[in-house]
Amino acid sequence: MSRIAIKTRQKRQVIDLTDRINEVIRQQNVSDGLCHVFVLHTTAAISVADLDPGTDLDYLEALAALIPDLDYRHPHDPEHTPDHILAMLIGPSLSIPVEARQLVLGTWQRVILLEFDGPRERQLVLSFLK
Amino acid sequence: MSRIAIKTRQKRQVIDLTDRINEVIRQQNVSDGLCHVFVLHTTAAISVADLDPGTDLDYLEALAALIPDLDYRHPHDPEHTPDHILAMLIGPSLSIPVEARQLVLGTWQRVILLEFDGPRERQLVLSFLK
Amino acid sequence: MSRIAIKTRQKRQVIDLTDRINEVIRQQNVSDGLCHVFVLHTTAAISVADLDPGTDLDYLEALAALIPDLDYRHPHDPEHTPDHILAMLIGPSLSIPVEARQLVLGTWQRVILLEFDGPRERQLVLSFLK
Repeated sequence: MSRIAIKTRQKRQVIDLTDRINEVIRQQNVSDGLCHVFVLHTTAAISVADLDPGTDLDYLEALAALIPDLDYRHPHDPEHTPDHILAMLIGPSLSIPVEARQLVLGTWQRVILLEFDGPRERQLVLSFLK
Repeated sequence: MSRIAIKTRQKRQVIDLTDRINEVIRQQNVSDGLCHVFVLHTTAAISVADLDPGTDLDYLEALAALIPDLDYRHPHDPEHTPDHILAMLIGPSLSIPVEARQLVLGTWQRVILLEFDGPRERQLVLSFLK
Repeated sequence: MSRIAIKTRQKRQVIDLTDRINEVIRQQNVSDGLCHVFVLHTTAAISVADLDPGTDLDYLEALAALIPDLDYRHPHDPEHTPDHILAMLIGPSLSIPVEARQLVLGTWQRVILLEFDGPRERQLVLSFLK
């Protein structure tokens, strides 16, 4: 099990984790199996996506427009509720195959962290399974 | 592999599974690895969330408002279709790291069952991996 | 690790993978553990669903109506952006318990591939874990 920290710089942001995870895989000398990525927060999520220029902003705008503008009860900050719901919809975790000491991904797939309530330092747990 | 049953009490409900899963982890004497949670139903889902008071109702209302009100074909009960779509969007399964015989979670993260068509008894399968 | 290819026939389509995955499980002689399914594309997703007649079209219509119609930036094809966002919301991957050489699923659960930008040949990676 490895922990990595990712600094985010905006309220909402898409961050490419692929190279960072591959670096941990090489350091840990993981040859084949699965890499499990888990983010330890309720307003951030893990996914894969095509990161053609501009698409990160497309994703963030579409996701923002998705969540209905209701009168939320959240005790500290009701405006915070859509961040939680987006994190739940995308999900906090992903498992990706590993082969020959790197992630097995499609041509356009990048592993991403979706920040919905930054800027913050986000903690991720990487686990490797055979 | 362990199976647990969870009784839900409302049509839509958020149920905190964290203590129940940690209890199984201790009983099974799982020290480190991953805990995989899988719900055996198509109108319930597994996620993690902050469960500050009132947020469960926020999540359920936002999710209900998300699904478009179309003229669905579902043969037995077309009003049932949004329950299925929410279950698909959140997902039936989650893997969570385990360390020192308990789930590794962030400060605000609770593992939750989302019931979209209760009340029912829901079956979950827990698998442990090293 | 096994790779399988699935031919899709429509722009958007739900394809039942259950029998195909069970066949690989039997061929690989996997007795118990987890089966991890990962699709190597950014406009397709993996989930489980009830496939009562007509429900596949219900799911696809509801999902299409979910994504807001914004002025997307995607450099090659902005109309393509909703396909990416749906793939991200459903997710590229799923782990399912295996027992006695077959997937452990609820009565109504089928493992599905959701095609959002077909027709294409889609590549999937299956990994088996104990």
